[in-house]
Amino acid sequence: MSKNEIFAGIDLGGTNIKACLLTREGEIVAERIVGCEKEGGVDHVLDRISDLINKLCSSAGCRVSCVGIGVAGLVDAEKAVLLEAPNLPGWRDVEVGCELKRRLNLPIKMDNDANVAALGEYMFGSGSGVKNMMMVTLGTGVGGGLILEGKIYRGSSGSAGEFGHMTIDPNGPICSCGRRGCIEAYIGTRGILRRTKECLSKGSSSLLSGIREEEMTPKHISEAAEKGDEVAIEILRKTGYYLGVGIGNVSNLLNLEMAVIGGGVSNAGELILGPAREKTMDVALEIPGRVIEIKSAQLGEKAGMVGAACIAMSMV
Amino acid sequence: MSKNEIFAGIDLGGTNIKACLLTREGEIVAERIVGCEKEGGVDHVLDRISDLINKLCSSAGCRVSCVGIGVAGLVDAEKAVLLEAPNLPGWRDVEVGCELKRRLNLPIKMDNDANVAALGEYMFGSGSGVKNMMMVTLGTGVGGGLILEGKIYRGSSGSAGEFGHMTIDPNGPICSCGRRGCIEAYIGTRGILRRTKECLSKGSSSLLSGIREEEMTPKHISEAAEKGDEVAIEILRKTGYYLGVGIGNVSNLLNLEMAVIGGGVSNAGELILGPAREKTMDVALEIPGRVIEIKSAQLGEKAGMVGAACIAMSMV
Repeated sequence: MSKNEIFAGIDLGGTNIKACLLTREGEIVAERIVGCEKEGGVDHVLDRISDLINKLCSSAGCRVSCVGIGVAGLVDAEKAVLLEAPNLPGWRDVEVGCELKRRLNLPIKMDNDANVAALGEYMFGSGSGVKNMMMVTLGTGVGGGLILEGKIYRGSSGSAGEFGHMTIDPNGPICSCGRRGCIEAYIGTRGILRRTKECLSKGSSSLLSGIREEEMTPKHISEAAEKGDEVAIEILRKTGYYLGVGIGNVSNLLNLEMAVIGGGVSNAGELILGPAREKTMDVALEIPGRVIEIKSAQLGEKAGMVGAACIAMSMV
Repeated sequence: MSKNEIFAGIDLGGTNIKACLLTREGEIVAERIVGCEKEGGVDHVLDRISDLINKLCSSAGCRVSCVGIGVAGLVDAEKAVLLEAPNLPGWRDVEVGCELKRRLNLPIKMDNDANVAALGEYMFGSGSGVKNMMMVTLGTGVGGGLILEGKIYRGSSGSAGEFGHMTIDPNGPICSCGRRGCIEAYIGTRGILRRTKECLSKGSSSLLSGIREEEMTPKHISEAAEKGDEVAIEILRKTGYYLGVGIGNVSNLLNLEMAVIGGGVSNAGELILGPAREKTMDVALEIPGRVIEIKSAQLGEKAGMVGAACIAMSMV
């Protein structure tokens, strides 16, 4: 094993392809974003990925040992096959691994975005040094990725980590998945906006009252909270509370050392994480030697491509 | 590795010590129960364990490769130290591994009863052939043990598997642990009896009405349900329902192939497991290739000693 090994990481999204070259120490030696041009079809996108890697290697003057790809969707990680991808219509059972190996003559590894982000934070982010952790991504959906005993835990058919669909009240509000009382129904974007609407409809005075309902985003709520708006602060506090119920449950079941929180909604930072810690401590059993830390993700927008390079690294 | 290797399994309880000798194929070649005589103190009990193993070996005319011990309590499995045991007052930080190794000159392995039972069912019970499973023990408490990737999963400080204290309603009834809405608050013995009392106090006609409140046990409820008593059937149905919420949550998070249900309360069988399956399917996300089976435990009363022999087996 050479110390100068370089790994390529690809974050394949519905709009853009982000790519980086990463050293084994986690240093990004080159990075680039190009449009995905998914309307060009599967082969076109795969060509763009291989071109992108070749160009990055030329510009950095280096060779790559292995390529990792992260994508939102159902992935057969063992075979590097993309079974289904919500943001890439028409991509079903695409043998991404085979196809890119043919183009690049390099080993290819693939996993879903949640697992990839978890591995990235574990190797070069907030989870560095722990053995068992969960990454939670707060956005439209609430995603989860598990690192157990230092490795991505995928479960029996590759679909582990669905933290967002843990029922925390069988009679709770309806979730996007159609079930009741999932964590996502409380702290996914829709859940947060629903609770905001409920608060405002009670006539509470708030900076948020001036924003049209259909234009409101979690960002407006964070900004109002930072200005001291009590309604907004309370909404984020409750978001942390429900997140904490879920993390406490996972802590009881899996005795993790850390939960790392990322995704756009988590930009509210301590306004969510503070209450989440409090509720987690409340839900988690007090057992000697057992502590779970809750930290913000460190890799931000780069989580996808850096994590993808990490799955490449974990292969060789 | 000899095909004729024999492993000793010890189920150390507050009343009895159960021991067996097990082949690598899971055949019990000898077994015996003696009183624990815990009032004699730690050394006395450890002497009884080593005598018991020696006697079993003499009577069966064989030698043992390794000894495994299962005990209810907090165990440091790596060091084979019993940190705390609710049924063995005064046993704190007892180096059971060292002490028995000194007496028997054999490698000793120890774990808590939930992990040991899970491993037993995984190796020689209902979970045989799966990779990822959870064992749930329904009794006074609701215990859990996880087998992930074919091994006991203990978590970062050895206390994973607390399925019974998963919050399924933050505003639910108070649990024995002091928290609200834990699964155990619904389906632990106390929870089941509380719900029974609530039903009967509404004046529902039931075979259970004739039983004095302080004498009622889950067994009365199973018996009444088997006789067609509707109140009893409904109580067990709801028990299955809450169990199913929990198993569905774990399925979403861990993508297990199986949940194995044991413990005294589970003797009600399909009256609980049927509704549990239904609710699990409802809570678990529908993802292609993903199914979780719910089965009764097979090892019954022998789960402790057989599972303990299994942890010995997994050592060598």
